[in-house]
Amino acid sequence: MTEVRRGGGRKSRAARDGTGIHQLPWQLVENPYTPLELARPDEIEAIHRTSMRILSELGIRVMGNRVMSLFEAAGAKVDRSEQIIRIDETIVAAALKSVPPSFTLTSRNLARRLKIGGRSLVFGLVAGPPNVHDRVNGRRSGNMKDYENFIRLAHHFNAIHMIGNQVTAPQELPANSRHLDTYLANLTLSDRTYHCTAIGRGRAMDGIKMMAIARGITLDEMRLDPGVTTIISVNSPRLFDEAMGDGLMVMAEHKQPVTITPFTLMGAMTPVTLPAALAQQNAEALFGIVLTQLVNPGAPAMYGAFTSNVDMRSGAPTFGTPENTKANIISGQLARRYKLPYRTSNSNASNTVDLQATYETVMATWGAVLGGGNLIYHAAGWLEGGLTASFEKLVLDVEILQNMMEILKPIDFSEAELGFDAIASVPTGGHFFGAAHTMERYEKAFYRPLLSDWTNHGAWVEAGSHDALDKATALWQQALHDYQEPVLDQAIREELDAYVAKRREEIGAGEP
Amino acid sequence: MTEVRRGGGRKSRAARDGTGIHQLPWQLVENPYTPLELARPDEIEAIHRTSMRILSELGIRVMGNRVMSLFEAAGAKVDRSEQIIRIDETIVAAALKSVPPSFTLTSRNLARRLKIGGRSLVFGLVAGPPNVHDRVNGRRSGNMKDYENFIRLAHHFNAIHMIGNQVTAPQELPANSRHLDTYLANLTLSDRTYHCTAIGRGRAMDGIKMMAIARGITLDEMRLDPGVTTIISVNSPRLFDEAMGDGLMVMAEHKQPVTITPFTLMGAMTPVTLPAALAQQNAEALFGIVLTQLVNPGAPAMYGAFTSNVDMRSGAPTFGTPENTKANIISGQLARRYKLPYRTSNSNASNTVDLQATYETVMATWGAVLGGGNLIYHAAGWLEGGLTASFEKLVLDVEILQNMMEILKPIDFSEAELGFDAIASVPTGGHFFGAAHTMERYEKAFYRPLLSDWTNHGAWVEAGSHDALDKATALWQQALHDYQEPVLDQAIREELDAYVAKRREEIGAGEP
Repeated sequence: MTEVRRGGGRKSRAARDGTGIHQLPWQLVENPYTPLELARPDEIEAIHRTSMRILSELGIRVMGNRVMSLFEAAGAKVDRSEQIIRIDETIVAAALKSVPPSFTLTSRNLARRLKIGGRSLVFGLVAGPPNVHDRVNGRRSGNMKDYENFIRLAHHFNAIHMIGNQVTAPQELPANSRHLDTYLANLTLSDRTYHCTAIGRGRAMDGIKMMAIARGITLDEMRLDPGVTTIISVNSPRLFDEAMGDGLMVMAEHKQPVTITPFTLMGAMTPVTLPAALAQQNAEALFGIVLTQLVNPGAPAMYGAFTSNVDMRSGAPTFGTPENTKANIISGQLARRYKLPYRTSNSNASNTVDLQATYETVMATWGAVLGGGNLIYHAAGWLEGGLTASFEKLVLDVEILQNMMEILKPIDFSEAELGFDAIASVPTGGHFFGAAHTMERYEKAFYRPLLSDWTNHGAWVEAGSHDALDKATALWQQALHDYQEPVLDQAIREELDAYVAKRREEIGAGEP
Repeated sequence: MTEVRRGGGRKSRAARDGTGIHQLPWQLVENPYTPLELARPDEIEAIHRTSMRILSELGIRVMGNRVMSLFEAAGAKVDRSEQIIRIDETIVAAALKSVPPSFTLTSRNLARRLKIGGRSLVFGLVAGPPNVHDRVNGRRSGNMKDYENFIRLAHHFNAIHMIGNQVTAPQELPANSRHLDTYLANLTLSDRTYHCTAIGRGRAMDGIKMMAIARGITLDEMRLDPGVTTIISVNSPRLFDEAMGDGLMVMAEHKQPVTITPFTLMGAMTPVTLPAALAQQNAEALFGIVLTQLVNPGAPAMYGAFTSNVDMRSGAPTFGTPENTKANIISGQLARRYKLPYRTSNSNASNTVDLQATYETVMATWGAVLGGGNLIYHAAGWLEGGLTASFEKLVLDVEILQNMMEILKPIDFSEAELGFDAIASVPTGGHFFGAAHTMERYEKAFYRPLLSDWTNHGAWVEAGSHDALDKATALWQQALHDYQEPVLDQAIREELDAYVAKRREEIGAGEP
């Protein structure tokens, strides 16, 4: 019985014994509150008008003949010698009409289906760092063993809804085929949906096909019920390279959702002012979304924002700054103007998991939530401006995400909860510890944290004066110890292995 | 020349040399954005109705004959044997009519005048901890030397607008006269306004009189232009003790602003449910505010909220929790329903300045800001659930407050800031580092942090791998080194000293 060998989907011993890590159950998160508006409607329109001027007067440079042909057919002005495409507002408006306001992502476990759009809020694992760090083993280059452990943690912690594009690059593996290894790890070690690597057609297509195999469905069925997604980064200012364009097109052809995220650090890739950065981001994001609709009208697409700033003294990227938080909020206003789902981020620029990493992360997260973000990318594990995936930071982030989930949980204002009778039952100056109203509710009344230590100072010192970072170090190790691999049908596993073997042979020393 | 000896109000050497700590300038903070609403209007009314039932059916217990007489005269039902006062909604509504929607606080430096109410946001120094901690000297009992250093830091850091009630108790000094020493330190080592200790009439009166002396004005003039304030804590559930009632009355008589803050930890002093805790908090706060108006109609009064929860496993108070954040937000909705200025808090329950202290603090601060708080009390230095005033935490908090000030700064969406021409000036795939638009603005374009380190990993390791906590330890020491005592007229100083000497003699071994 494969199921039993692989854990059988039964509860782990730790969970059965109640000795496992106490965490919130898996849940789809909705943000029931009105997003914050830092820009007035006329200011949003001023950004929109500037974006339209950027698109129609300056244009976007795109490498790739097929993209130019698609835009030509749509009535754009295409300068083939300069590779510059200029589009006016009518082209943008026509294309936006066919973008679905929300979409679903279905993994091999139907219980992990995600909705992205509307009031939904999805948290993704950090993606892309070349390095890995934990306090036991130190800082090292990305590798497959650590990659797999991050996937195990993403599967173990319910607050992590999806896997981003390569939590870290397994650098010991060949660059042209390591996407196969990482997809396989995603599909065998977790039951989450994942982001495809969309550098060129081959890598994206492998990601789509392997998810279809894992779900036991055809590519046509995947078109009707998408299972993977990707983020297309723009080489701001105003440049889409060919590989990213190809990745975008293959995803859109198969109706797998595509997010367009301009990489817009104020002062470097955009002007230093927030309105200009947002106008440029907006132009670039809309351009890519238009392209998805020219490829395949109705393909799911998402508005991506990653506007932060640089340290003007060093040129270093910074995140979780006031400027980044404001950009997260106003970008949401822009996405809603176009009725597009909204991808934002939780990032920080600290070199270590410290006070700075924490306040920058919480600031960015509030910006994302108040902006009405639908997908918070890099929500767990991002450190050092994205150069390191951190095990301790992942645990810290799960705690922050769980806090946010609790804050967003709707409040019941029924008479029983208003508790007049309970208040009447306790004398002035008394206490409610033993009241019936308390006893009926106390076990579930409050959020129970993962990381916070609320013992008194004396007890805390006696237990060794461990701070939250020490606790985070213990928790990721415990999570890996408690981790149970999700059941995967043996036939599907064999089909995945065969697909990877065949593709590895096909690719050889070439490009995927 | 006293002025020269005391520093003369001139810039310190560090400031003149540009070697001082770079911080935001002194500023009054306005929150230009619409507060978040976690409760619908009908839910706010449900809380209101429950509060009115608490006040009219259950009543509040108040120790003190004068309070009972004042309420009797206003038409309340007073049970003198049980010391229970019951008031109906008409009494509440009549009293609320005379509360000013905002007020000012003027210290001995007119440039430090604060406005509290409307969209204003004022940050106060932590108040009340019995212990002090820093990483150089460890944890110790509150004492006058540390008290004075905290006041110096509050004066040095522009983000700290006011001094709370006794940042730590100087425990080596006699309990019946140490308020004189702390007021004197507030008035000589800083130019900030402060909170009086309102335990009984004497301590509050000394605080009022000493501020009047420092400002060179009469008590009648102080009535027209208040200079000190206080917070009256309610012994929840539903109990005002005599000393606090007396403090409230003497402040109201002199038209110095009074905040009523019920001490409402869910599960202990209130039911475990948030709606019940808010209904009880609301009833208790309104009761105290009604009393201020019965004493002196038109006396400034503020709605105080301090609702958090306890750890139901240990009974320990917790802060910065999701429940605390939600309470901070909804309490603001309640304060606005009654057109009252709103006091809230920034607190955390960590035993040390760690990740937990940071995320709990940022969560609580966002709750306070999104709730439209006018005064964030304990905004700088609070640690260990309020049992310790921490020097490193103060620096961390100043960084968090400065971040928030920048987030709240209105954004200029003019054409120049929208930057179309700047975007047009940089080719696709280029960068904006040298653009004229950048060069004109780069020095002030972005917030410059106090604590964050944005150097790259290699440079950071080479510099000793110091985290933000190390930097905070260095910064409070540098701030104390750079600190310049503000100028105080010698005659006023002598008058203050004489007042303290006379009062010390009057008090002797008795009560102030």
